[in-house]
Amino acid sequence: MADAIRLCYHQPDFAIIAREQYLDHAARNLTSMMRTVFWDYEDDTVKMIDQRLLPFVLEVAEFDDYREVARAITEMYVRGAPAIGASAAFGMALAAHQSRAGDRETLIKELEQAAETLNAARPTAVNLSWAVNRQLKTAHSEQSESVSDIRHALLDAAQKIADDDVQLNRRMGAHGAELVSDGATILHHCNTGALATVDWGTALGVIFSAHEQGKNIHVLVDETRPRLQGAQLTAWELQQRGIPFDVIADNAAGHFMRTGQVDIVLVGSDRTAANGDVANKIGTYKLAVVAKENGVPFYPVVPTSTIDLNLAEGDLIPIEERSPDEVLCVAGNRVAPDGASARNPAFDVTPHRYVTGIVTEAGIIYPPFVKNLRAAVEKEQGRT
Amino acid sequence: MADAIRLCYHQPDFAIIAREQYLDHAARNLTSMMRTVFWDYEDDTVKMIDQRLLPFVLEVAEFDDYREVARAITEMYVRGAPAIGASAAFGMALAAHQSRAGDRETLIKELEQAAETLNAARPTAVNLSWAVNRQLKTAHSEQSESVSDIRHALLDAAQKIADDDVQLNRRMGAHGAELVSDGATILHHCNTGALATVDWGTALGVIFSAHEQGKNIHVLVDETRPRLQGAQLTAWELQQRGIPFDVIADNAAGHFMRTGQVDIVLVGSDRTAANGDVANKIGTYKLAVVAKENGVPFYPVVPTSTIDLNLAEGDLIPIEERSPDEVLCVAGNRVAPDGASARNPAFDVTPHRYVTGIVTEAGIIYPPFVKNLRAAVEKEQGRT
Repeated sequence: MADAIRLCYHQPDFAIIAREQYLDHAARNLTSMMRTVFWDYEDDTVKMIDQRLLPFVLEVAEFDDYREVARAITEMYVRGAPAIGASAAFGMALAAHQSRAGDRETLIKELEQAAETLNAARPTAVNLSWAVNRQLKTAHSEQSESVSDIRHALLDAAQKIADDDVQLNRRMGAHGAELVSDGATILHHCNTGALATVDWGTALGVIFSAHEQGKNIHVLVDETRPRLQGAQLTAWELQQRGIPFDVIADNAAGHFMRTGQVDIVLVGSDRTAANGDVANKIGTYKLAVVAKENGVPFYPVVPTSTIDLNLAEGDLIPIEERSPDEVLCVAGNRVAPDGASARNPAFDVTPHRYVTGIVTEAGIIYPPFVKNLRAAVEKEQGRT
Repeated sequence: MADAIRLCYHQPDFAIIAREQYLDHAARNLTSMMRTVFWDYEDDTVKMIDQRLLPFVLEVAEFDDYREVARAITEMYVRGAPAIGASAAFGMALAAHQSRAGDRETLIKELEQAAETLNAARPTAVNLSWAVNRQLKTAHSEQSESVSDIRHALLDAAQKIADDDVQLNRRMGAHGAELVSDGATILHHCNTGALATVDWGTALGVIFSAHEQGKNIHVLVDETRPRLQGAQLTAWELQQRGIPFDVIADNAAGHFMRTGQVDIVLVGSDRTAANGDVANKIGTYKLAVVAKENGVPFYPVVPTSTIDLNLAEGDLIPIEERSPDEVLCVAGNRVAPDGASARNPAFDVTPHRYVTGIVTEAGIIYPPFVKNLRAAVEKEQGRT
């Protein structure tokens, strides 16, 4: 890893210089203020926000070796399927760029080696192997014998993967923003912003779009225990964009809904079943039930690529349990007594009867979901 | 403050000695394993668990000066209305004990001084001023001119306040345990155990009673953000009594209820309105709604003294907002970005339509609550 640009909020002078430097990079690549991962065309490196340091330090790591990109993926500099996919695609472009191969065949052999390394970085990430394989295909199908042409093709393809994600999020944002009225208070769970994608985001992207339209909005940010993505990442993203917000304990969301202080709930979804059941960060289900009880509209914001028409209902999704230490320790400090045990389901399933509608890039889908989700997915597949 | 008995779980040898010492004290005073605050008849001191050190260190502080008791109340060695009341009552007994007054008049003057100091320790604690005033009345109404007799009267009265609370909790425990079947999994919010009372507890007391009856139970412990009383105190109390439990993020409670893994929800209540609405630790409302949605019975466990027949409904209770730092920092570490703001309502109101029944020392009260709560309160007032 080469030098990193380090923005520490406790060192304002340093931050100002580094921030301008960063925004300068950003300006050449971004539709908005920042991207989680991007190619720096000035020095042909891959740059990545090290999310592990947020919200206290904004450090943009710089990589001139694809093996370092793989390590960064393993060590969770980036999170979220789209960002992992784009990182892997840029990693392949970097492998091509750094190669000293003199002919097509040697280069492709090296790329196959890079693909192996990148695929092993996080073996369970579906977007990662999809992006790596797509890049291998790009290399194979490039007609030119020129090594330089193959390099360019891989970089263009990686850039397109990243740009497509941003454009997708922009489309979801535009549809979803119609649901957010001027003066609205929005309740949001987990992190679904630029940091969970390549840029802009899903549910948080809708919030950014509404803000961009000049709507005066306020966000209640569920801190989202156990991993606190709300308090750490969503709060930071809102702050960066100057959108007013308050962090709340997840426990407080019910009080605010019951006392009429919430106009809409927006969440992401990792996987949506054919019937509209959504699997998302633990705590989403509780929110959805209490929202319905109080007549507050509840909308997951999801790309159609995550709608699984072959999955009849959400309860067919196995719920992963993560390490008990995420519950027993907070911010590196143990909070429960020694010897205490914990249960830590990472996700829950929200049955579709609590879902008001589902925001996708193809528009907002309302019940009956079985019919309307299928139509949306097929429309979108026909488009691309 | 005199020497403290310090039980550190990381120093087992020390812990074994100190623990026996402690339990020896305890055996003379307790119906169960420990009391939050008690009089040590061996050396005429007030002893108090320093709850700020739990769950990592069990330190029983020892006081031979009522001013130190007042300081301990201010500094939150104890929490929970009954424990604060008993501490103040023992503080008054200690003031009488340490007095060198030779006559009744001088002693009473000194007690009035002590009452002022203790009352100022936590000015908003209703139980505190109630206990202090009751002790002043005890002194005034003691017929004997003997300083020693007044001393004894104050100590007996303090002991009675403490014992009455334990007995009250035992009665609630016995009633509530009828609701807990063998093999049940109980979901519990916040801390409502020995540490929230003088001993045994309210909702947690019901769990202890069920366990004492030999029922094979399992507790899911809501960690209870923002102050984590569940992860820190309830987990510790269950561990001390050998009751199986798992700590969970508050967000996970919905998942466990929806998937049929919870048989009953037990919570405390700080204040119950005449119609059965309950005000309790933030997050209780969300639990109650999701419990009802899943057919899981939801029971607050409350002494009749906290049922306010003059309060028509819960929404008349103003919701205190505590420091945003409780949300923005966890276990002493900041989790949200600098400059982030937070909302931090300490309590919420659960409307009575979500309440299956209310466990009191007078029995389990079912709807219609307006009629049945009044009858229970009046029955209990007639009894005492």
